[in-house]
Amino acid sequence: MIFEKDDILVMAGDSVTDCGRMYEQPPAGWRSFGDGYVSMVDGFLAALYPELRIMVANKGVSGDDILLMEKRWDKDVLALNPDWVSIMIGINDVWRQFDGLLMHVQTVDQQAFKSTYRSIIERTLPTVKGMILLSPIMIEQSNDNPMKKMLVEYAHIAKELAVEYKLIYVDIQARIDAFLQELNEFILCSDRVHPNNKGHAIIAKAFLDAVGFDWTRT
Amino acid sequence: MIFEKDDILVMAGDSVTDCGRMYEQPPAGWRSFGDGYVSMVDGFLAALYPELRIMVANKGVSGDDILLMEKRWDKDVLALNPDWVSIMIGINDVWRQFDGLLMHVQTVDQQAFKSTYRSIIERTLPTVKGMILLSPIMIEQSNDNPMKKMLVEYAHIAKELAVEYKLIYVDIQARIDAFLQELNEFILCSDRVHPNNKGHAIIAKAFLDAVGFDWTRT
Amino acid sequence: MIFEKDDILVMAGDSVTDCGRMYEQPPAGWRSFGDGYVSMVDGFLAALYPELRIMVANKGVSGDDILLMEKRWDKDVLALNPDWVSIMIGINDVWRQFDGLLMHVQTVDQQAFKSTYRSIIERTLPTVKGMILLSPIMIEQSNDNPMKKMLVEYAHIAKELAVEYKLIYVDIQARIDAFLQELNEFILCSDRVHPNNKGHAIIAKAFLDAVGFDWTRT
Amino acid sequence: MIFEKDDILVMAGDSVTDCGRMYEQPPAGWRSFGDGYVSMVDGFLAALYPELRIMVANKGVSGDDILLMEKRWDKDVLALNPDWVSIMIGINDVWRQFDGLLMHVQTVDQQAFKSTYRSIIERTLPTVKGMILLSPIMIEQSNDNPMKKMLVEYAHIAKELAVEYKLIYVDIQARIDAFLQELNEFILCSDRVHPNNKGHAIIAKAFLDAVGFDWTRT
Amino acid sequence: MIFEKDDILVMAGDSVTDCGRMYEQPPAGWRSFGDGYVSMVDGFLAALYPELRIMVANKGVSGDDILLMEKRWDKDVLALNPDWVSIMIGINDVWRQFDGLLMHVQTVDQQAFKSTYRSIIERTLPTVKGMILLSPIMIEQSNDNPMKKMLVEYAHIAKELAVEYKLIYVDIQARIDAFLQELNEFILCSDRVHPNNKGHAIIAKAFLDAVGFDWTRT
Amino acid sequence: MIFEKDDILVMAGDSVTDCGRMYEQPPAGWRSFGDGYVSMVDGFLAALYPELRIMVANKGVSGDDILLMEKRWDKDVLALNPDWVSIMIGINDVWRQFDGLLMHVQTVDQQAFKSTYRSIIERTLPTVKGMILLSPIMIEQSNDNPMKKMLVEYAHIAKELAVEYKLIYVDIQARIDAFLQELNEFILCSDRVHPNNKGHAIIAKAFLDAVGFDWTRT
Amino acid sequence: MIFEKDDILVMAGDSVTDCGRMYEQPPAGWRSFGDGYVSMVDGFLAALYPELRIMVANKGVSGDDILLMEKRWDKDVLALNPDWVSIMIGINDVWRQFDGLLMHVQTVDQQAFKSTYRSIIERTLPTVKGMILLSPIMIEQSNDNPMKKMLVEYAHIAKELAVEYKLIYVDIQARIDAFLQELNEFILCSDRVHPNNKGHAIIAKAFLDAVGFDWTRT
Amino acid sequence: MIFEKDDILVMAGDSVTDCGRMYEQPPAGWRSFGDGYVSMVDGFLAALYPELRIMVANKGVSGDDILLMEKRWDKDVLALNPDWVSIMIGINDVWRQFDGLLMHVQTVDQQAFKSTYRSIIERTLPTVKGMILLSPIMIEQSNDNPMKKMLVEYAHIAKELAVEYKLIYVDIQARIDAFLQELNEFILCSDRVHPNNKGHAIIAKAFLDAVGFDWTRT
Repeated sequence: MIFEKDDILVMAGDSVTDCGRMYEQPPAGWRSFGDGYVSMVDGFLAALYPELRIMVANKGVSGDDILLMEKRWDKDVLALNPDWVSIMIGINDVWRQFDGLLMHVQTVDQQAFKSTYRSIIERTLPTVKGMILLSPIMIEQSNDNPMKKMLVEYAHIAKELAVEYKLIYVDIQARIDAFLQELNEFILCSDRVHPNNKGHAIIAKAFLDAVGFDWTRT
Repeated sequence: MIFEKDDILVMAGDSVTDCGRMYEQPPAGWRSFGDGYVSMVDGFLAALYPELRIMVANKGVSGDDILLMEKRWDKDVLALNPDWVSIMIGINDVWRQFDGLLMHVQTVDQQAFKSTYRSIIERTLPTVKGMILLSPIMIEQSNDNPMKKMLVEYAHIAKELAVEYKLIYVDIQARIDAFLQELNEFILCSDRVHPNNKGHAIIAKAFLDAVGFDWTRT
Repeated sequence: MIFEKDDILVMAGDSVTDCGRMYEQPPAGWRSFGDGYVSMVDGFLAALYPELRIMVANKGVSGDDILLMEKRWDKDVLALNPDWVSIMIGINDVWRQFDGLLMHVQTVDQQAFKSTYRSIIERTLPTVKGMILLSPIMIEQSNDNPMKKMLVEYAHIAKELAVEYKLIYVDIQARIDAFLQELNEFILCSDRVHPNNKGHAIIAKAFLDAVGFDWTRT
Repeated sequence: MIFEKDDILVMAGDSVTDCGRMYEQPPAGWRSFGDGYVSMVDGFLAALYPELRIMVANKGVSGDDILLMEKRWDKDVLALNPDWVSIMIGINDVWRQFDGLLMHVQTVDQQAFKSTYRSIIERTLPTVKGMILLSPIMIEQSNDNPMKKMLVEYAHIAKELAVEYKLIYVDIQARIDAFLQELNEFILCSDRVHPNNKGHAIIAKAFLDAVGFDWTRT
Repeated sequence: MIFEKDDILVMAGDSVTDCGRMYEQPPAGWRSFGDGYVSMVDGFLAALYPELRIMVANKGVSGDDILLMEKRWDKDVLALNPDWVSIMIGINDVWRQFDGLLMHVQTVDQQAFKSTYRSIIERTLPTVKGMILLSPIMIEQSNDNPMKKMLVEYAHIAKELAVEYKLIYVDIQARIDAFLQELNEFILCSDRVHPNNKGHAIIAKAFLDAVGFDWTRT
Repeated sequence: MIFEKDDILVMAGDSVTDCGRMYEQPPAGWRSFGDGYVSMVDGFLAALYPELRIMVANKGVSGDDILLMEKRWDKDVLALNPDWVSIMIGINDVWRQFDGLLMHVQTVDQQAFKSTYRSIIERTLPTVKGMILLSPIMIEQSNDNPMKKMLVEYAHIAKELAVEYKLIYVDIQARIDAFLQELNEFILCSDRVHPNNKGHAIIAKAFLDAVGFDWTRT
Repeated sequence: MIFEKDDILVMAGDSVTDCGRMYEQPPAGWRSFGDGYVSMVDGFLAALYPELRIMVANKGVSGDDILLMEKRWDKDVLALNPDWVSIMIGINDVWRQFDGLLMHVQTVDQQAFKSTYRSIIERTLPTVKGMILLSPIMIEQSNDNPMKKMLVEYAHIAKELAVEYKLIYVDIQARIDAFLQELNEFILCSDRVHPNNKGHAIIAKAFLDAVGFDWTRT
Repeated sequence: MIFEKDDILVMAGDSVTDCGRMYEQPPAGWRSFGDGYVSMVDGFLAALYPELRIMVANKGVSGDDILLMEKRWDKDVLALNPDWVSIMIGINDVWRQFDGLLMHVQTVDQQAFKSTYRSIIERTLPTVKGMILLSPIMIEQSNDNPMKKMLVEYAHIAKELAVEYKLIYVDIQARIDAFLQELNEFILCSDRVHPNNKGHAIIAKAFLDAVGFDWTRT
């Protein structure tokens, strides 16, 4: 596994990452993990690798698009001196172009998404051991769905940047799509965006697989 | 893995199983899982074995000892027509003998524990494919602690019954003890009884290992 | 318009009809209408046809499928001695076959849906001036979506019964589909089932058109 | 209809406009519309003219007289760059002269009402396509009622300004009065000032009629 | 004054009498008086006639018309063995004929009002020293208002019965009307039915005048 | 009566005056009066002297001694441009010398009480028509009670100042003492300091008597 | 000390005993003690005599007079099979004769108090090792206070019964009176009936002294 | 006893001292004591030494380690001009080294603990009559427990400082350990850190013994 003793892992993102974490708690403190994939990742890392003493901090913020996340990057992420940073962002950048159509809000086009994402990466890389980019997801089986189509393009940007900067890329959407071959989207969530415990298990499993988690441990 | 298509798994127990599940929800319904190991087990079973369509129902009740659990067994467990039943019970049977010392409450001695446990098994076995017994746990590193000592004896009863009836037995305490070789008990809980997300990850992992969960799946 | 002086119109259905109405209020009383299409229908009928003094009662109940609605029909609907009854039902009969897949709940197949619906109609028709059947809706643009497909079949049953018994049939789904040619589903709701004020305006407009509401009135 | 593609319509006013809208929501966002005529106007405009993508923002504030509304005009209304602005104001300017008699509050006489209203119009007109003035209303059938009498005079000022500046004027009071020929005021509200769903349907219908809404659409 | 040592006075009525009294309190107990005229009557009777030790019990119930009040008469009023009973009822009997027009509720016509009122009097008189009838009130200055007109007729019935049975009749409406010669109705209440502290002072003063309260006491 | 048309009366004091008034309300506004003597005074003044249009503002603040009241005098009292000011203060100046004995708080001796009271009077007199001083009260029948004894001395200071500045002085304590000749203190309050409706009726009656209220009015 | 190993002590009474205990807790369970003298007695008994394992159950009920307490005696007290029972009752029997004067409630005269108290003793004595009677208290320094006078007589009845049946009698009032020689009543409570932590320390100390508690223990 | 007339005793510490005290209350005010040992100490000091009029202020703050306590020392403790200061600190300094292992928080080593403690003592001693140091406690019977071991070392530092500066040292841990010879830790608390009423009785008794409290008083 890529994590080493005493490593600090900060997991940044939007509401899919946030999952009701208590903001007034200190990082990695009681009830600071939310009840989504971050809590599972923290739980399994500690449970099976206790000797590594890895600190996991949830820094997802509900409603964030990449511009909002970029504004709090220094204070929320870099200030923790992380060894590893994961990012799962993009659904709101896309969603606002659909549900915000009658609100005339400023949206984030692909160019802005890529340049902001790049800026975040470049500000972070010099001080960390590595970054892990997770694809944003839409829990929708049809690839013809317009929002799914657009989201796939934004996810592709994340993938391109991961390749360019040699970062770990975790294709969560691919795992979701495989699941939807078997069962419908309502098993994982009610609005195609916010997963329940089953959806978060998919994300956590994919993440841990990607970082070399050894599941044969007990 | 032992579970087959459309199997129903009912997980019975006390507050360690309950974990804040919403009682007014239908079995396996929204927010019916609590936020402990049952939610993780359900999440991973659905996420990685969607084709099996396994139903998981949390039937833990906070405060239950084996006598209280036995009283609700028909209505809470057998009425669901489960294919598999897991049981994690015993901590309150033991704890009351310590924290209840000045309350003069009726406690459950080992004989009553064993006979009631046996009765539950015998009423259940004829209608299910199998049962899985989980050891109750105390998150305490010292084997000289009097309550830990007593709990180990109760856990041993569960193990004896598992052997006698050829049931799967999952030694959660052994996993906890291994963890406590590396890190102290406060990492897993604050009162040595109710685990946090890290403690529940240990339980869920042990359970899934015991039922033949294939972690190489994605 | 089909309604006459002093007519009582009872609008039955599920959560799309219910919309947060206060159950403890008397029929047609303060805050009894919910904040969906029933409130709009009541508002426009009273506002533009004050001389008719039409009473509108919301009898939607969140979570109802047709079996649950049938059980409360006498007490909730017929007891009010309605002149007209509208029904918008079916989404839960279908939805449970998707989101309830891992809950092993009893679902309502098309045969049961049709026979129960028929029973409701036959118990009602003798005492009313007429019935108005509204198609259940899914706010989903793709006709290939499996749940949409199934829902269309259930809606078709409602239509068949309307034809058979010569009832007014309002094809709400057709109006929704037309809207989705122009704008995406997130403009009307977040989960493809429960409409916001824009979605309810579509329903209310379709209903009022169907009953011969004269929009040139002021 | 007067509205064109991508137009922004800001509807300003007092509590009759506000209707419990959530102030912390972004303009045109979820639950930002209140549950009065603005929600109905937004609903019907979106439902029947989806291709126009009209944004509707509720900027009513409970308790506002014209002086209070004028103070927040830049920040609340002009800052949104509206194409169209509607105003329904005046009831509090009049009401305070009745219910505030023993509070010795500063009230707004007709001269101040007119000059402030004029100032608002002149600051707004250069940047918008048009303005729509709605008469304030009192739901009282007797024209001899002193407050009704005074309100009619204030409404007349709004009408004079509409004529002078060639703005659309919507005589809501006339519609209310017509209704009260048939049914009493308690059908529309309990305090003669704050309408229920029926009263708001009258306002919304009058507004939409005035802007050329095509009710034959489906 | 008509009250004598240790007399029990029960004041029955609707929401004008109730005024938020706490039902779970014993009669005449802490917070049992509501914050309307009953609290003032009790306060002044005790304050200025402490030697009489008069017990005052509020038995108003919000929403009551005379039929509803009649149903609880034995349990709520006679069971207290009152020496004196006051009644202020009728506004809901009339109001429902206006605000309930679209609810098709059973209303209380003048004949039913009179016969029920008479029945209440006849059941009460044999066991009490006397009864005091208060006119119901509408705080509306125009005698042409249809609801005011009708209420006056119902009040007249109360007066006729008072004359017939030689009971004290207190014409609260006359006091209200005199007030409205000087100040408008909004000074006394917002909805013309439920008085504020000023309106209740008028009622309390009228009641105490009618029972011979000696205001020169200190 | 001493009050004239359009007079503003501000009633200052401590919790006995405050009585749960809503601070966020404008002076003399809805629910601004509390539920004690101020509400009764306002009620009777408006009810029986509507032509005078007297404004009554409650400016009691719970917990205030004279030093705390003096600090808010400009903002709370003089800023309202009152014609008349009433003051009922002193119980906390005395009480703190009893219940605060173990808190080592700074207390207000008689000299400080008198000089601060004098300062308040002198700052107020030039801009008002008159001031009315009410004695603070302790609802305790024994004149040997040490706190009662001390309070009487503080009340005497208020009386001396009233004489010196020719202000109206209302001896509420004398009325309370007279009441306690007939009934015990628990009839008026539970803690000998905060009156219930009966106690407040005594205060309101005494105040209105002192200002020449004509109780023969109707 | 009189208590022996495994003794059960039930402490019965009114609100002075109750002190906010949680009724849904089992006897001697978490938060079952209230925050008054019972909690202190339980605390010191357990802290300094751990080897005795004494169970202490709070069975005070707010508002109880001796009649109400007698009605629940079997279920609340005897059902616990106590070895020792303490009773502190009487303040409400007396208080109601003062604060209930205008409520015409049935009060408990000395004869009824004595006979009911005697009945309770006689039903209890056969099954317990002993009973401890605590005087009810009024925290009032003047012996001329009418309620204090009456309470002293009721306390005397308790003392007489203690003598007659050779029970332990604890004169709490004497301790309170001694305290009031030094400090005033507001140091111990605000309403002369319900003590704060200081008042409860007096009660607990007196009780423990009376049962032979050895304060030299550590 | 060491305390003299009018002495002020400030009791500083962490959550064991805090015990839910209300921060908005003035020192020694109503509900300012929490429900732990400070409330008992205050209660017994006032109850049995009323003539000394000792003021007791609870200045415990939940979560404090010695660094956090040091930061608020001037404002929270010295500003009260205490005559005596007690300190019970250290459990969080130690606990964070166990439960904070995965949070990478700055912890307080023994050197920092001692130097900060020394600084607090030296800033305090010049202005007080004396200081009383209480050992922090862990309610754990095994001296082999790693956290207990470490805590004993921190407690030893407090003892060393007490010796060096000739302060009173109260070995609470010794009392707890003695108790645990007889009964298990769950009798005193659920998490081995926060005592219940029994645990606080041990602390209060030990403190009062240490300051020469005369338990033979009544």
